[in-house]
Amino acid sequence: MLLSNFVATRPRFEVTQPASLAWLADAHAEAEAALAHLDDAGKRRFAAKIANVLARCACPPDKLARRGHSLPELDVSGFAADPRGRTAEARTRLFAEVVDAYFTRAYEAELEPPDDLIHVTCTGYVSPNGAQKLVAARGWRTRVTNAYQMGCYAAVPAVRMAAGFTATGARRVDIVHTELCSLHFHPDDHALEQLVVQSLFADGLIRYAMLGDDEGPGLRLLGWAEQVLGDSAGSMSWRVSDRGMRMTLARDVPERIAAALRGFVIELYQRAGLDLGAIRASVFAVHPGGPKIIDRVRDVLELDEPQVGASRDVLHDFGNMSSATLPHIWMRILADPAVPCGTLIPSLAFGPGLTVCGALFEKQ
Amino acid sequence: MLLSNFVATRPRFEVTQPASLAWLADAHAEAEAALAHLDDAGKRRFAAKIANVLARCACPPDKLARRGHSLPELDVSGFAADPRGRTAEARTRLFAEVVDAYFTRAYEAELEPPDDLIHVTCTGYVSPNGAQKLVAARGWRTRVTNAYQMGCYAAVPAVRMAAGFTATGARRVDIVHTELCSLHFHPDDHALEQLVVQSLFADGLIRYAMLGDDEGPGLRLLGWAEQVLGDSAGSMSWRVSDRGMRMTLARDVPERIAAALRGFVIELYQRAGLDLGAIRASVFAVHPGGPKIIDRVRDVLELDEPQVGASRDVLHDFGNMSSATLPHIWMRILADPAVPCGTLIPSLAFGPGLTVCGALFEKQ
Repeated sequence: MLLSNFVATRPRFEVTQPASLAWLADAHAEAEAALAHLDDAGKRRFAAKIANVLARCACPPDKLARRGHSLPELDVSGFAADPRGRTAEARTRLFAEVVDAYFTRAYEAELEPPDDLIHVTCTGYVSPNGAQKLVAARGWRTRVTNAYQMGCYAAVPAVRMAAGFTATGARRVDIVHTELCSLHFHPDDHALEQLVVQSLFADGLIRYAMLGDDEGPGLRLLGWAEQVLGDSAGSMSWRVSDRGMRMTLARDVPERIAAALRGFVIELYQRAGLDLGAIRASVFAVHPGGPKIIDRVRDVLELDEPQVGASRDVLHDFGNMSSATLPHIWMRILADPAVPCGTLIPSLAFGPGLTVCGALFEKQ
Repeated sequence: MLLSNFVATRPRFEVTQPASLAWLADAHAEAEAALAHLDDAGKRRFAAKIANVLARCACPPDKLARRGHSLPELDVSGFAADPRGRTAEARTRLFAEVVDAYFTRAYEAELEPPDDLIHVTCTGYVSPNGAQKLVAARGWRTRVTNAYQMGCYAAVPAVRMAAGFTATGARRVDIVHTELCSLHFHPDDHALEQLVVQSLFADGLIRYAMLGDDEGPGLRLLGWAEQVLGDSAGSMSWRVSDRGMRMTLARDVPERIAAALRGFVIELYQRAGLDLGAIRASVFAVHPGGPKIIDRVRDVLELDEPQVGASRDVLHDFGNMSSATLPHIWMRILADPAVPCGTLIPSLAFGPGLTVCGALFEKQ
């Protein structure tokens, strides 16, 4: 079973990280001014305060250069009238418009239907979805399956699902991620963890296929592992709320994941019949939740910096695109001539649970 | 591959259909009185009007005797203060409380962990979910996969996913449905289609397992089929909105499904290497969206009434429990001594897309 045919689509708009952080400070100040009845001087002071916090705690521009978003940047003055941001209904409607259009465009030139299409997202829930509308419009007999609400690690369960569909008869399973993280902005929540989140996440749109035969270039699937860590349910959450999805993120997440990682990776290799010595020559695809988690993975597994380079580069170029991030890293490793065929590609992603997900591939 | 070990849990509360319809009329009148500033006489007139519509169009008590719900019945006077019902955030919180407690109870006596646990719902999205919390609390290495937002037909994709997990190494895959449809009540939406919906849906909680070996009693999986119908995306929808999930349902749904059904069922049998003559001795599990769809399936496929009896009985006893309904029908057919081993159990379900899903089993 082979992952292949990666096609990423850049979101329509892009903002550099410095511009984005400045916008965030203004947006929070506008919302706070409306809620706490601040005058102009008070609003400016609040913006400066948020800008200060962001300068200390946000992902800095040398680690994250720019982020994509699918909708035009909001004029911050809009938050004066509605300091809680768009309603959940409006966010759902906008998600559907963007995603329906994406599916149509992304499959415009596609003549052959896939047997299965797995739609992966945690940022918009509407049925029928863009995948179903595509299949109906084209008169395809493709089966559509949702892989929803699994956060940043969802590419791994999606690959597991695709492997199962392939094992039970499908020749081609397409996996399509549509993550519109930027939709779920909360200008009225000034907590430090929210500011960190808002400085990291971005939109990501990508499709790829699992092929039943092992021909051609791609990532050959060798195995997978998955673990829900104990006593960490409160460390991260993602839930439907009145004004879009709401995230919580504790500071201890990188440490909790790091503590479980060594045993987890040993198991991932063992399940594929490989011993841990093979780590040395492996190139890692690590979901870059933030810069810190890449550091921790590198240190715990005693990796060289180049072994996590693709993960850092994707964070730098695009931000944390939730479940769409790992596929962007796979695509980059696949296209990189410096990574020879035969290289092992252990892939790691993390999310609410806390859940640690892994898949092991070989580049071919 | 065998579906087995069905365990249904009744929701904590039950209301007879006449009591439920009376409550609905009062709740709508209370919301309308608040929104349109009606006096007591106006409110009584409005309640009578809604009661009249319900008497004509709601699922009558001889077809649906009672429905379960997981939360205590709301005092309708609450809708005076909040005519739009609970916020999305409150609905999500209540969903999580009920579902977390359900997973704990449902697995209390379970000593052996499943390899996989598929959590099926379209009525509440929160991560970590009850399944992840269970697995963490018990220290299990079970993989948790969400089958979310696939509406009433989700049992079929969940079974497809389980078949794939089984084909790639799992010995036991548990599938758990937690549908809290009653949470998503909109007292301010008096449209006829909403009243029909609100008179049909109920809560449903059920777990079962797919076993890799074919031993013991159960439903042996012979095959499946799935189709998104053309030009029907607007006939049914289910989406996240400000105050819980929102459904739309056009009148033409039963006719659109019926028009596709004969060809679809022929294909379902052919894929399993069976010819349509085998329909005669089959017992159908038809998702009872409402009484009408069972009639249409019976007529189009020229079935006898007893061939759809289990589907009618489940609608009568429990209401439309979204994706949990089909598993309740499977459980009933499996336990029914009048259905001999060797009987084919074609299973059909429908939802947004419009999507028609089918699975074919043999009772053993």
